[in-house]
Amino acid sequence: MNEARPTENAIRPTRRENYAEWYQQVIRAADLAEVSPVRGCMVIKPWGYAIWENMQRVLDGMFKATGHQNAYFPLFIPLSYLEREAAHVEGFAKECAVVTHHRLEPGPDGRLVPAAPLEEPLVVRPTSETIIGETYSRWVQSYRDLPILINQWANVVRWEMRTRLFLRTTEFLWQEGHTVHATREEAVAETLRMLDVYATFAEQFLAMPVIQGEKTPEERFPGAVDTYAIEAMMQDHKALQAGTSHFLGQNFARGCNIKFLDANGRETLAWTTSWGVSTRLVGALLMTHSDDDGLVLPPRIAPVQVVILPIFRTDAERAEVLASCRALVAALAEQRFGDGPIQAEIDARDVRGGEKLWQHVKRGVPIRLEIGPRDLAAGTVAMGRRDRPVREKVAVARDEFVAHVPEWLAEMQAGLLARARTFREERTRRIDRLEDFEAFFTAADEREISGGFALCHYAVEHGAAAADAVLKRLKVTARCLPLGAEPEAGTCLFSGRPSARRVLFARAY
Amino acid sequence: MNEARPTENAIRPTRRENYAEWYQQVIRAADLAEVSPVRGCMVIKPWGYAIWENMQRVLDGMFKATGHQNAYFPLFIPLSYLEREAAHVEGFAKECAVVTHHRLEPGPDGRLVPAAPLEEPLVVRPTSETIIGETYSRWVQSYRDLPILINQWANVVRWEMRTRLFLRTTEFLWQEGHTVHATREEAVAETLRMLDVYATFAEQFLAMPVIQGEKTPEERFPGAVDTYAIEAMMQDHKALQAGTSHFLGQNFARGCNIKFLDANGRETLAWTTSWGVSTRLVGALLMTHSDDDGLVLPPRIAPVQVVILPIFRTDAERAEVLASCRALVAALAEQRFGDGPIQAEIDARDVRGGEKLWQHVKRGVPIRLEIGPRDLAAGTVAMGRRDRPVREKVAVARDEFVAHVPEWLAEMQAGLLARARTFREERTRRIDRLEDFEAFFTAADEREISGGFALCHYAVEHGAAAADAVLKRLKVTARCLPLGAEPEAGTCLFSGRPSARRVLFARAY
Repeated sequence: MNEARPTENAIRPTRRENYAEWYQQVIRAADLAEVSPVRGCMVIKPWGYAIWENMQRVLDGMFKATGHQNAYFPLFIPLSYLEREAAHVEGFAKECAVVTHHRLEPGPDGRLVPAAPLEEPLVVRPTSETIIGETYSRWVQSYRDLPILINQWANVVRWEMRTRLFLRTTEFLWQEGHTVHATREEAVAETLRMLDVYATFAEQFLAMPVIQGEKTPEERFPGAVDTYAIEAMMQDHKALQAGTSHFLGQNFARGCNIKFLDANGRETLAWTTSWGVSTRLVGALLMTHSDDDGLVLPPRIAPVQVVILPIFRTDAERAEVLASCRALVAALAEQRFGDGPIQAEIDARDVRGGEKLWQHVKRGVPIRLEIGPRDLAAGTVAMGRRDRPVREKVAVARDEFVAHVPEWLAEMQAGLLARARTFREERTRRIDRLEDFEAFFTAADEREISGGFALCHYAVEHGAAAADAVLKRLKVTARCLPLGAEPEAGTCLFSGRPSARRVLFARAY
Repeated sequence: MNEARPTENAIRPTRRENYAEWYQQVIRAADLAEVSPVRGCMVIKPWGYAIWENMQRVLDGMFKATGHQNAYFPLFIPLSYLEREAAHVEGFAKECAVVTHHRLEPGPDGRLVPAAPLEEPLVVRPTSETIIGETYSRWVQSYRDLPILINQWANVVRWEMRTRLFLRTTEFLWQEGHTVHATREEAVAETLRMLDVYATFAEQFLAMPVIQGEKTPEERFPGAVDTYAIEAMMQDHKALQAGTSHFLGQNFARGCNIKFLDANGRETLAWTTSWGVSTRLVGALLMTHSDDDGLVLPPRIAPVQVVILPIFRTDAERAEVLASCRALVAALAEQRFGDGPIQAEIDARDVRGGEKLWQHVKRGVPIRLEIGPRDLAAGTVAMGRRDRPVREKVAVARDEFVAHVPEWLAEMQAGLLARARTFREERTRRIDRLEDFEAFFTAADEREISGGFALCHYAVEHGAAAADAVLKRLKVTARCLPLGAEPEAGTCLFSGRPSARRVLFARAY
């Protein structure tokens, strides 16, 4: 969103030149991840993984604060289990990696080949409703055993034909919450509570504004009664579904036989939910804030908030400058930001100064400090902020820096959220005529990108057939029915039928 | 090790009656894990997972403090990669789960069957040297890229024929460190450094004394030049290998083509290491300390150090007692123990008092407090400690409890370690005659268990053939060549050849 002219060190191509390629190049320049030789799987590199670890730590705390515990369930799902919920298996069958053998032995040509076929093939979990449901059916006997509120951090595999780092990979890391309740009301409340946890996390930590909404029937999780999602707008105006929470009704309880005796001794089917976010969030984070200079990290999710770049020529200078840098790291560790101390790091590698500085720009570190002998003498530091142009360096008294840095970081965090919110609001339209809808998704704006978020009346039950051709042509989908919107009488944009609320339309990842 | 007579609530069978079954029953009573319907895979339940999370948190901090970063590599390994190191693939071929298809489609009878065969089968990682090695070969160009110090937290799969919860399961959770170095010396130093990290962790956090040693050639990791391990003694006198660290020499660098240009511009093969601990540690922890009343957790690894059991009859009492318990939790949270606040929990469930108290005994919570209206009036708490008999309750002034609890927890921690160390030392013998060796491993002691740790001269290179029959008959193996032992001239117990050091023998898990 920083539209200043690209510097000589900028990411090539820029967002405007080729957004999709810019995305890959930001990942590369920030050293977040790379394509692995295993089809569709990625290697998450240390900087990318550190961001994911921070996401995990914060979310894990939020899950525990809402009464959830972690557990771990098997990677493999017997094929027959997956079949217990008809829509579910239908939805995932085409994406399943299947283990069929449990041994390798030399074949006729001496090369190893799979031997020892399994009696029943095992699917590598694409999601765990059925294997966890089977387990819960043994845990739940009485209403006293409910609710069950469990989360799992795990890897899952969905065989994708077209993959993109973080956004869509064959294997990805995620968390999946799976809960069981005695009543429909409780399960619905849990579904919405966790959606809200995701929205809070996205806004407060990722500085990524999201719209909470209900998915249309076509976009539901296979087997769910209702799917809710948080949707964010990326800088190419596309929507990205950043987390989902599913009210599963009694579908999986029926398939997996999760029953309990209620307080009156009656056998009752339970109600279940599931909810998840994944390493996809790293891609969403990237596309929300990054610019043509590379990654931009909101301070509350950055693995390092302050990087210190010592400058020296002689050994004597080196010793003096490094000692001073270390004292600064210690002073910063005494300052709190968010729920912990400020993470500062010294980069004393023997790399040319300009190159080193740019590495940290591209990795998105919120604050860069250069400290040399002159700064020592003057009691100052030269500060660069990732939310300001790279060339803008400000000399700040060292003590003032230590005292004010939590406030500056909080200001950056708030600034990123506000900027992303403004960006989204500028590209969100209430549209009531089909020709305006077409124009919105075809006419390029001043950034040469069309579309955005369109809020339109849509009779979900009847409009789908009427909307189908237009949406396909424009490559637009109904993202969600935003929660909390005031009921509003209108006419379906596509079918002309009466409609009681607006639906969010966008192109989507 | 608490040999007091079993109470009516004790684990049945006791350790003495049937140790293997006692182990399963402690897991069940403590609600740590259960066998899943997926062959050989376990479900780790919340209490078991919370212990594993604590292990992860501490180890992760130790890895980072020694300069390592986390990353994540693919779950799947193309078969041809696994073949890059001959001994390695030989060692793991029989245990590999193999993905051969990536799609399910309805078969002739309408049931789903694997469709879309893969061009090359994918092995579900049993360990990741080859897939990580392939990645490193692309990352390493120059000596400036070294060392690479990376760790991965992951699940791995080894198809085991006989499984036991935590000790040997088809899927397990672990961490695997994989490092690359420019010189042999550096790689050896890393191997030993991480072995020492494991030993420190085992002793300081798990209160589990371990012997650091080098494995004999037969017990080496497939593909390693040297394998080092930490070995602990369980209460049935068997050894349990609780962590391993491998010096891989240039074997995997050669197989995976990890080369670098040294400072003189010469192309050089790199040196690599790998090291890991797994959820097996939970089993080791259990068997080191638990007794016939159930699990015993050292305070530094317990998810909860203090459980508070409120006692009340009327609603008024309930309100008053609970308020007081909450205030106590808050006061305890102000007290530090180890690297964090004291974790205290109130169990206000509507469960009969005796049953509830026993649940926490069996789950191994270090300190139990009962608080009722009389305690409120007297300003006391009724304290029970997991390292004392269950019936022993001590009335302590509430303020005194808050002030002294860190000290008492530290005392318990040290006491458990000392007790385990004494137990091991009492069952460790230096043995110099074959008949004594046989007697040691056959004559039952006062606990009706034979064996222990035998330190014997053994000419590793030549003794193996001579020792084979005896060791097989006794079901004993050479566990390791303990590090740090003084060289000592002697005669191999089995071959009669000269020997320069003693080797540790034991039955093992």
